[in-house]
Amino acid sequence: MKMVPRLTLADAQVIMQACVRKAREIAVDMDIAITDDAGHLLLFQRMDNARITSIDIAMGKSFTASAARKSTRAYGEVSVPGKPAFGINTSNQGRFSIVAGGLPLFLHEQIIGGIGCSSGTPDQDEIVAQAGVEAFQAYVIN
Amino acid sequence: MKMVPRLTLADAQVIMQACVRKAREIAVDMDIAITDDAGHLLLFQRMDNARITSIDIAMGKSFTASAARKSTRAYGEVSVPGKPAFGINTSNQGRFSIVAGGLPLFLHEQIIGGIGCSSGTPDQDEIVAQAGVEAFQAYVIN
Amino acid sequence: MKMVPRLTLADAQVIMQACVRKAREIAVDMDIAITDDAGHLLLFQRMDNARITSIDIAMGKSFTASAARKSTRAYGEVSVPGKPAFGINTSNQGRFSIVAGGLPLFLHEQIIGGIGCSSGTPDQDEIVAQAGVEAFQAYVIN
Amino acid sequence: MKMVPRLTLADAQVIMQACVRKAREIAVDMDIAITDDAGHLLLFQRMDNARITSIDIAMGKSFTASAARKSTRAYGEVSVPGKPAFGINTSNQGRFSIVAGGLPLFLHEQIIGGIGCSSGTPDQDEIVAQAGVEAFQAYVIN
Repeated sequence: MKMVPRLTLADAQVIMQACVRKAREIAVDMDIAITDDAGHLLLFQRMDNARITSIDIAMGKSFTASAARKSTRAYGEVSVPGKPAFGINTSNQGRFSIVAGGLPLFLHEQIIGGIGCSSGTPDQDEIVAQAGVEAFQAYVIN
Repeated sequence: MKMVPRLTLADAQVIMQACVRKAREIAVDMDIAITDDAGHLLLFQRMDNARITSIDIAMGKSFTASAARKSTRAYGEVSVPGKPAFGINTSNQGRFSIVAGGLPLFLHEQIIGGIGCSSGTPDQDEIVAQAGVEAFQAYVIN
Repeated sequence: MKMVPRLTLADAQVIMQACVRKAREIAVDMDIAITDDAGHLLLFQRMDNARITSIDIAMGKSFTASAARKSTRAYGEVSVPGKPAFGINTSNQGRFSIVAGGLPLFLHEQIIGGIGCSSGTPDQDEIVAQAGVEAFQAYVIN
Repeated sequence: MKMVPRLTLADAQVIMQACVRKAREIAVDMDIAITDDAGHLLLFQRMDNARITSIDIAMGKSFTASAARKSTRAYGEVSVPGKPAFGINTSNQGRFSIVAGGLPLFLHEQIIGGIGCSSGTPDQDEIVAQAGVEAFQAYVIN
């Protein structure tokens, strides 16, 4: 047995708030999902103009970032044809996302969870997720 | 074309707050899902001790209550062997829930959305969902 | 709560008629799906020689166009290898279509629904869907 | 953030050994799955004469016992027609098992994981899982 840190709902709420603030700042309504280190959903929010299809995509990004412990952008880069992970996105019932916008949450190199955003361009999605990562780090340090 | 009312995120947050308050009152951590009139997820929250399996169950209850416009308890009653809806729970990729804890949200007999709770007994789940229905009604009237 | 317009079956029938007329004109039997703004099926028709596999594809195209509020061709363009949405088509249980032939229906920039056609080449499919979009616009104006 | 205990592979191997020993003792080859507290597979073993269909069933039992924190037998009892959880087994993509043979692993009332066995009668399956639970408890105390 080993002891591992686990994200609480209170932690997730801090992260969500920061994501929503950033989404408003860049003026793109988002679907935002936060998962624990096992990839299970902890908190989800759909802003009023976020896309319906992005509900599932945000969850997939968050699942992937936390359960695979890597950004979905990084997976995207090794998943183009000819690269070693090409085709990996059909695994895990299609929930393995290779589109940018999913970021893992680490605490001293230990995986803690993930954030997945969707509804803007993948770059916008990642900016919103990144705001959540930074809020988490600031919150944990303090 | 016709005009229909649609639940906003702000509405869902009022509902969620009431559900969480009731869950704390009865001391059972819950997975709580709120869906729009189409059955699509708007807001989801997993309280710290809520069950992992109940993430999907809460979503299924909320989906069913909103998209079928009936409580999941009512479906449960007509879905026992020999009753007309027996077996209906395998439809919609198994998301059609017949376990109590899913309640529809109506506004002047028009479906608006649904609430699905899971992690307690089905009776407890429904009490928490009911608190959300009542908060919604009070909120809409005022 | 906010008020949103919703496609009725009568609206969908006007759209379907225009699609079928165009499919006959170009002499390609089609599977044609019309969805509401939530991506849920409202009307579906398989012409006698339409492909069996295109039942699902037409539904996927229509679902995507309405629920993501963009043509499936536009998604196809940003989903080739190296482009930011590459891999997005495995999301939403594989229903996210990136093949041309799915078009959204807008009313004053508000999403109303979508049309998905399949059985011809993607270009033919889109021509048939486009006929539906135009009929919808003419019908709504009058 | 909170700290939680997590099952290691070494822990799971101790449990598996005890299950296999019991399966041999009662002379029924089994599929045996061990999951962590999130319901994710940690160790799986198919004995030579175990059923193919039981690969999935053992995983479902173990998933359910750990992620819902209750034995699958207990769920079976409340899931017969007329009981409150009837129909719950279609949730979680059909992975929610209500057939005896899945047992949770607790450490001081904290969920640690689950064991799922299948291939014999449900009673035999549970006997084998129980041997794993007891080995885990003895191992943890020492």
